[in-house]
Amino acid sequence: MKKINKVVLAFSGGLDTSVILKWLQDTYQCEVVTFTADIGQGEEVEPARAKAQQLGVNEIYIEDLREEFVRDFVFPMFRANAIYEGEYLLGTSIARPLIAKRQIEIAQETGADAVSHGATGKGNDQVRFELGYYALQPEIQIIAPWREWDLTSREKLLKYAESHRIPVEMKKKEGSPYSMDANLLHISYEGRGLENPAVEPEESMWRWSVSPENAPDTAEYVEIEFKCGDAVALNGNLMTPAQVLTTLNQLGGKHGIGRLDLVENRYVGMKSRGCYETPGGTILLRAHRAVESITMDREVAHLKDELMPRYAALIYNGYWWSPERKTLQALIDGTQQDVNGWVKLKLYKGNVIVVGRGSRTHSLFDENVATFEDDAGAYNQADAAGFIRLNALRLRIAAKIK
Amino acid sequence: MKKINKVVLAFSGGLDTSVILKWLQDTYQCEVVTFTADIGQGEEVEPARAKAQQLGVNEIYIEDLREEFVRDFVFPMFRANAIYEGEYLLGTSIARPLIAKRQIEIAQETGADAVSHGATGKGNDQVRFELGYYALQPEIQIIAPWREWDLTSREKLLKYAESHRIPVEMKKKEGSPYSMDANLLHISYEGRGLENPAVEPEESMWRWSVSPENAPDTAEYVEIEFKCGDAVALNGNLMTPAQVLTTLNQLGGKHGIGRLDLVENRYVGMKSRGCYETPGGTILLRAHRAVESITMDREVAHLKDELMPRYAALIYNGYWWSPERKTLQALIDGTQQDVNGWVKLKLYKGNVIVVGRGSRTHSLFDENVATFEDDAGAYNQADAAGFIRLNALRLRIAAKIK
Amino acid sequence: MKKINKVVLAFSGGLDTSVILKWLQDTYQCEVVTFTADIGQGEEVEPARAKAQQLGVNEIYIEDLREEFVRDFVFPMFRANAIYEGEYLLGTSIARPLIAKRQIEIAQETGADAVSHGATGKGNDQVRFELGYYALQPEIQIIAPWREWDLTSREKLLKYAESHRIPVEMKKKEGSPYSMDANLLHISYEGRGLENPAVEPEESMWRWSVSPENAPDTAEYVEIEFKCGDAVALNGNLMTPAQVLTTLNQLGGKHGIGRLDLVENRYVGMKSRGCYETPGGTILLRAHRAVESITMDREVAHLKDELMPRYAALIYNGYWWSPERKTLQALIDGTQQDVNGWVKLKLYKGNVIVVGRGSRTHSLFDENVATFEDDAGAYNQADAAGFIRLNALRLRIAAKIK
Amino acid sequence: MKKINKVVLAFSGGLDTSVILKWLQDTYQCEVVTFTADIGQGEEVEPARAKAQQLGVNEIYIEDLREEFVRDFVFPMFRANAIYEGEYLLGTSIARPLIAKRQIEIAQETGADAVSHGATGKGNDQVRFELGYYALQPEIQIIAPWREWDLTSREKLLKYAESHRIPVEMKKKEGSPYSMDANLLHISYEGRGLENPAVEPEESMWRWSVSPENAPDTAEYVEIEFKCGDAVALNGNLMTPAQVLTTLNQLGGKHGIGRLDLVENRYVGMKSRGCYETPGGTILLRAHRAVESITMDREVAHLKDELMPRYAALIYNGYWWSPERKTLQALIDGTQQDVNGWVKLKLYKGNVIVVGRGSRTHSLFDENVATFEDDAGAYNQADAAGFIRLNALRLRIAAKIK
Repeated sequence: MKKINKVVLAFSGGLDTSVILKWLQDTYQCEVVTFTADIGQGEEVEPARAKAQQLGVNEIYIEDLREEFVRDFVFPMFRANAIYEGEYLLGTSIARPLIAKRQIEIAQETGADAVSHGATGKGNDQVRFELGYYALQPEIQIIAPWREWDLTSREKLLKYAESHRIPVEMKKKEGSPYSMDANLLHISYEGRGLENPAVEPEESMWRWSVSPENAPDTAEYVEIEFKCGDAVALNGNLMTPAQVLTTLNQLGGKHGIGRLDLVENRYVGMKSRGCYETPGGTILLRAHRAVESITMDREVAHLKDELMPRYAALIYNGYWWSPERKTLQALIDGTQQDVNGWVKLKLYKGNVIVVGRGSRTHSLFDENVATFEDDAGAYNQADAAGFIRLNALRLRIAAKIK
Repeated sequence: MKKINKVVLAFSGGLDTSVILKWLQDTYQCEVVTFTADIGQGEEVEPARAKAQQLGVNEIYIEDLREEFVRDFVFPMFRANAIYEGEYLLGTSIARPLIAKRQIEIAQETGADAVSHGATGKGNDQVRFELGYYALQPEIQIIAPWREWDLTSREKLLKYAESHRIPVEMKKKEGSPYSMDANLLHISYEGRGLENPAVEPEESMWRWSVSPENAPDTAEYVEIEFKCGDAVALNGNLMTPAQVLTTLNQLGGKHGIGRLDLVENRYVGMKSRGCYETPGGTILLRAHRAVESITMDREVAHLKDELMPRYAALIYNGYWWSPERKTLQALIDGTQQDVNGWVKLKLYKGNVIVVGRGSRTHSLFDENVATFEDDAGAYNQADAAGFIRLNALRLRIAAKIK
Repeated sequence: MKKINKVVLAFSGGLDTSVILKWLQDTYQCEVVTFTADIGQGEEVEPARAKAQQLGVNEIYIEDLREEFVRDFVFPMFRANAIYEGEYLLGTSIARPLIAKRQIEIAQETGADAVSHGATGKGNDQVRFELGYYALQPEIQIIAPWREWDLTSREKLLKYAESHRIPVEMKKKEGSPYSMDANLLHISYEGRGLENPAVEPEESMWRWSVSPENAPDTAEYVEIEFKCGDAVALNGNLMTPAQVLTTLNQLGGKHGIGRLDLVENRYVGMKSRGCYETPGGTILLRAHRAVESITMDREVAHLKDELMPRYAALIYNGYWWSPERKTLQALIDGTQQDVNGWVKLKLYKGNVIVVGRGSRTHSLFDENVATFEDDAGAYNQADAAGFIRLNALRLRIAAKIK
Repeated sequence: MKKINKVVLAFSGGLDTSVILKWLQDTYQCEVVTFTADIGQGEEVEPARAKAQQLGVNEIYIEDLREEFVRDFVFPMFRANAIYEGEYLLGTSIARPLIAKRQIEIAQETGADAVSHGATGKGNDQVRFELGYYALQPEIQIIAPWREWDLTSREKLLKYAESHRIPVEMKKKEGSPYSMDANLLHISYEGRGLENPAVEPEESMWRWSVSPENAPDTAEYVEIEFKCGDAVALNGNLMTPAQVLTTLNQLGGKHGIGRLDLVENRYVGMKSRGCYETPGGTILLRAHRAVESITMDREVAHLKDELMPRYAALIYNGYWWSPERKTLQALIDGTQQDVNGWVKLKLYKGNVIVVGRGSRTHSLFDENVATFEDDAGAYNQADAAGFIRLNALRLRIAAKIK
């Protein structure tokens, strides 16, 4: 076994990472630094301090990263209209690179030679954490307890907690019916009852949104202003990135928007079933596409659309800190300079309906050319004949030899 | 002016194509063959016979092409999950190649040396018709009256009709507030009040669906069975392609599903605003993706997703009959051999919600591997360490020299 | 006919553009501004002045654009390793955007309302010129004489010259056996004897290079230094971009390097046969790929390779000034920041052989990892087992259900 | 350690696989089946029989797979014009899937529960073998001795051979200066002196070709006939696939064609330097592109070019038996139906020069349209104006708002 002196642990304060904390101390006889971040998961982070102290931790990092998360991770990704496999808005995937980055920074500050996380050996998150660690600090030691220890069932885990006097909340003993992950972009559900993809999830599972049935009977309109591809104001009120997303989450959750139930392909090779709530993100994606529709050149838009699935897969697979993701990001960011405008949306019982869009400065919609009425010579219909004939030339030559 | 003997006209029986019919006879002193097809536009086609006879046409073709339309055009396109610019389901685009093909066949049967259509010189449809004509009959003559004549306003058109004793229905005199096109896949609206993309369309515009607000308060479930990527049964009832789409249109329309309001990029170079209703297609697309999610290999699915925007643009731009569309279709069709399974959907006030999916024969979802519980050795978590380390190797080498 | 006041003509001083000059004066009764550029075509540009004066031109622009041509057009393109259809190094295509840009600038300086060029209506060059004009000055008038006049044969052209007292050199009367175009990157040959793609061109056609047979019997080595993807020194001597290319042209031409005989697909729809000499460019392309091979990340390199054909087609088709070319260029340029290093090449009778490459600062070649000998733990072979097993997982799951 | 009953070993008869054979018997106490294939590596395979017998093997498979190799692996790959990273013709990569397939078939015939190979844990070949094994027989056991044993140096290997009475040829004791691999498509060199990518390989390394300097002073012409994208005749003589490649290897080797020296990116994450001789393949690739240039539609050719790098990477990475490779192959094979024609090439001191190409049945080169002379109306130059204007429309609209 490798010799570890100090390890930075991504620590939620919950049962699993508390057990990991203790297990690291015992197994590696090393010092543990805890790192707990508020990325909008909707739970208090401050209680993690007491728990860490109780377990003898001296260096405790507790941070509010919500603005950084949305500004430097969520928004750049939304510039690409990124969707994985036609459905998934990458809520979990996009949070991991930030955690990985901060862990490595803290390792450097505290002189730690290792980092550790609570992701299992079967999922995508281990990959996302560890590719980040390696890319940012190539010689870092990584401890992934779930791949190493023998606490392979909840029972064993609880037993370990008990025997090491780790306090366990009563409800935790039963375990959640689902494996969940949350941040400002989304909340996810996996496992347990969801493992049969043929069966509809129970209504009680969903936490962030009402069902469309229970949403208000009256629609609500919202106008979003974009600057260089990022949402900067709602209904005329300037907001920070995290404020925008928080507000859209409230709006979306209220109107039953952003639920998703799908089967996805994990990077480690199997299909898995997941359910997601992404209320604000679902609104934002429609809005961003709509403002692009009026400000972005056709061929640039098509190029972006063709590259998007690859970009989304890079993020899903954990390659945020890779040169190829950065290369694509440079292309994407470049396309957003002219994406300045507004979109008006109607929210109603699960629907996000675009009802208007415009740009005072960058609209490429030329009413004079587009009109069905007399265009006063803005467009010469006769041009179309030559356009078609030359585009058809290769087809005609081929047809002739058949 | 080129000498024309006989021309096959795509004839709806409406005012525009009636004027074109007369204008062709007068201008080219040629015989006109009319071709009127039922592709599910929802209007009777038989009345076109009397109108054509009245105008002296001897060869009149009236055909029901609904099954061919869905089987050979709509379904192959849906195998690709084709969406243009992230939104548009290509309802108009996919009907033109069939019309073009039949016109050319009729030209060959009747010994005609020309074909003609009623599309304007500013839109995409002229391109879709004419690329089809040229690809299928390279020496055909094409007459596009809207690019040639001087009847450039509705007033002039009506005057021409009057002076040539072409009967005009009263309501036509006022003109529809929108330019519309319909077939079994969709109905589209353009022009007039829609020319300002900032303004929400009036509720009265929509013809095929109720608004989500007016849809039933109770959800309805539907199960779709797929065979080789095509929908073959609804709720256990085997159906022909056109029956599937007709039934889904009824279901979707009833539940307020499939409305769309967007700004799109035309092939001829300008942005235009269009509104669409695609009730059945919207359901079908979600369902098809869902059945693929459980039966299709990850890398094949990603490849398809990356090629889809290009495939969609080919259809949008009128290249159905091109070798590159056929080449892509061969790839797409090949991926559908294993796409056999079922999807259960919940329809509610504009929402199409996937609630279950499965395949008795081709499911790649392996519960034993995917489970969060003990997998009895189906998956070795330790493998993930090597997987990550080798995937990270190039990132680490690069980080070391920085 | 549109009213033109002043037109900027791309004027070589040869027969064709002299006739065009006169024809423009006569036909449009307008003033003509001539623009003649040295882009390395290997002919004196100064004589164009006298010819223009003789034809009554008052505003005469003669410019040496060689450095700008290589620095701002050739080098950016070579960063992409651009090759059209697997063979063609885009020598003609890349020069047109520069000419177009300067014509528009001169039009703005001189208050001209039109531009004109000598490209025919059948080739790619008209498109390249005119897309540039339109992109840079959307309201410019364009006169393409070859598409307008009736001087459709060489005989008629000579007659027109004679009757208008345009001096014609004796040799021009016979006409060149080929249609040629040259600049610092290449010389091209089309037409006449080449119109039969089955027949080998005559040795006497080639002007810039000796045949491999006639090249020296002794190989010559050259070392090229790259900085951010651009060649900056040969054999240790710092050089400007144009100097690099000029020197490589001499070296390549001497060693029989860079001849090409191909059939290509024109943007206007037909296949055509062309022959090209690109001595320096052929060396540069191999060298650039080699320096990338040691400094560029794998996935970035693969992404570049996948986008390259599209980038090359954009340049071939005349879209240099389009937003999509600029978008791709931003991606490409971003990848070149680390492309710093040197390549050693052996030149011998038509062969460009890479014999060594390295980078003091940016080499990603890690001998410790790559070695077949003992690597002292730099690489853990056991990692490969997990890497393979997880990459194989989806293949195994699929095989099991078969 | 897993319990193995019988293992099928890819056995060359050389030192390494002889040691592996013995090691398998000793370590796993299992029966070994040997499989030795002639895939054109240029060494006798029959001697492997005696060696296997000497080591107590009862089931010995020795097969001539040359025709299958070229027909079912090399030729399908060449239909794609596959090149990895712009240079490498995939000679080693394409042979592994065939070996893997036969091993699995033999395992099924002989009731073996495991397979084994002699590839190291650092290279690509282990991946290529094992992905094949898993895809074709998901439950197979795989033994990769180089990843398991402690014979980590040549010295230890020789000692093991000696102590187990495995006969070692004298020359093997010194070891080759390079790690080599050969088949009918190529021979490769890696390791030892090549590990410094800055240094030119010694002339004595190359085994299959003379240097360009030592090639004949007189050029030789060869004409290749293609049917559905595959070479079927040389200089008018019909040949089998293996005969074609054998003959082209002789021709290429004689004329110094097909040497390559490069740095490539391995799938397992590091850069490595390799040298290759692919004499026949180098000729074939140029020829195939040339016949495509005259028979293939432009857009199909461009699509193929864009997909090629991905297809090449799939083969390089070992995914021959994956669904995504098969999906791409279906597309590629579909494009080859019309690739029927001939190419004439001139071979001279390392150069492969295309000097003519044609197709009696499928040429898309239309001399009437392409001609610089009077085309009698085959092409209307005026069409180009409309073609350019509509292609420029979006550029003009964008320029106007700037």
